[in-house]
Amino acid sequence: MAERVAGPEIERLVQLLARLPGLGPRSARRAVLHLIRKREELLSPLADAINVARERIVACSVCGNVDTSDPCTICRDARRDPSILVVVETVADLWALERAGLLNARYHVLGGVLSPLDGVGPDDLTIASLIERARGEEIREIVLAVNATVDGQTTAHYVADLLAPTGVKVTRLAHGVPVGGELDYLDEGTLAAALERRTVF
Amino acid sequence: MAERVAGPEIERLVQLLARLPGLGPRSARRAVLHLIRKREELLSPLADAINVARERIVACSVCGNVDTSDPCTICRDARRDPSILVVVETVADLWALERAGLLNARYHVLGGVLSPLDGVGPDDLTIASLIERARGEEIREIVLAVNATVDGQTTAHYVADLLAPTGVKVTRLAHGVPVGGELDYLDEGTLAAALERRTVF
Repeated sequence: MAERVAGPEIERLVQLLARLPGLGPRSARRAVLHLIRKREELLSPLADAINVARERIVACSVCGNVDTSDPCTICRDARRDPSILVVVETVADLWALERAGLLNARYHVLGGVLSPLDGVGPDDLTIASLIERARGEEIREIVLAVNATVDGQTTAHYVADLLAPTGVKVTRLAHGVPVGGELDYLDEGTLAAALERRTVF
Repeated sequence: MAERVAGPEIERLVQLLARLPGLGPRSARRAVLHLIRKREELLSPLADAINVARERIVACSVCGNVDTSDPCTICRDARRDPSILVVVETVADLWALERAGLLNARYHVLGGVLSPLDGVGPDDLTIASLIERARGEEIREIVLAVNATVDGQTTAHYVADLLAPTGVKVTRLAHGVPVGGELDYLDEGTLAAALERRTVF
């Protein structure tokens, strides 16, 4: 049936695009038609970009970021403060922090969180190499910028305990009311944290 | 800023994917990270599929469908009933009808609808070649399967008038209550059509 719609090559492209997060079968079809209509402006450049990605994108052996160079752009950036290391769960989190442009530090991507139910143990994360970096590099503070989820916080505690012997200062992100957040929609934990850490106006 | 997040090659891929309908900058980033994580299962096959698309996908010179062959798979399909021609606005509509698998006919893609406001006139559509096909091919019925929009119906009337001299029978899709549709949510035009064309139970 599927192959009756168009040639198998088009169907294959639709099926592959449909596997991207955010795209389903229908939107993948629309995307393919859009690509074909905009062959020169979009299809061709996208083909080039994806070929480059396939050939050149690698994981950074230092921090776990993905880039076209190893060490990655960030690890090679001499202007970064070498005394602060920001630990994140995923590359997506690293990019989110970079987009915010608040930090001039380097990163360490854990590659996930401890999750016994999903069979994710310490050895599945880059915890060992984090300890090594804490010992070897000129790091004075390690910020555990993990998600405020149960798994995230459990992982943070586990990592903090292992980092203790290194003597490096370990910090975590503050809890509180998100900017623009309405108290009415916040959970009690967040409200409690926001109250507890209230500051003078 | 953008290039600080990762190498320019990755940013370029993100920006291109973000231009696909259904994907924004954020979901494009997620998609790229997903592609990189699934290099062998997804990134590589997608690169191949897009390269094939770039090199081989063409518009069918007969019906306007897009395919890797010209004439397209459907126009070359000898099992198709040559006496029925289904006129659609876009390739997406053609594919939608094919997916439904209700027809064994051939198609003619208009490439849009008449829309003076958007500067779309008869010469911007494939109306001339439709008339030619109506004259030349062994067609007995032309189904105007255009959208039930004002522009769609205006275009249908215009095309029907031009087809009249060819003597070919011109039909249109029926209006009525969509399957699963609730009367409460239907416009008066649809209800009127559904009542007018009511059938014996």
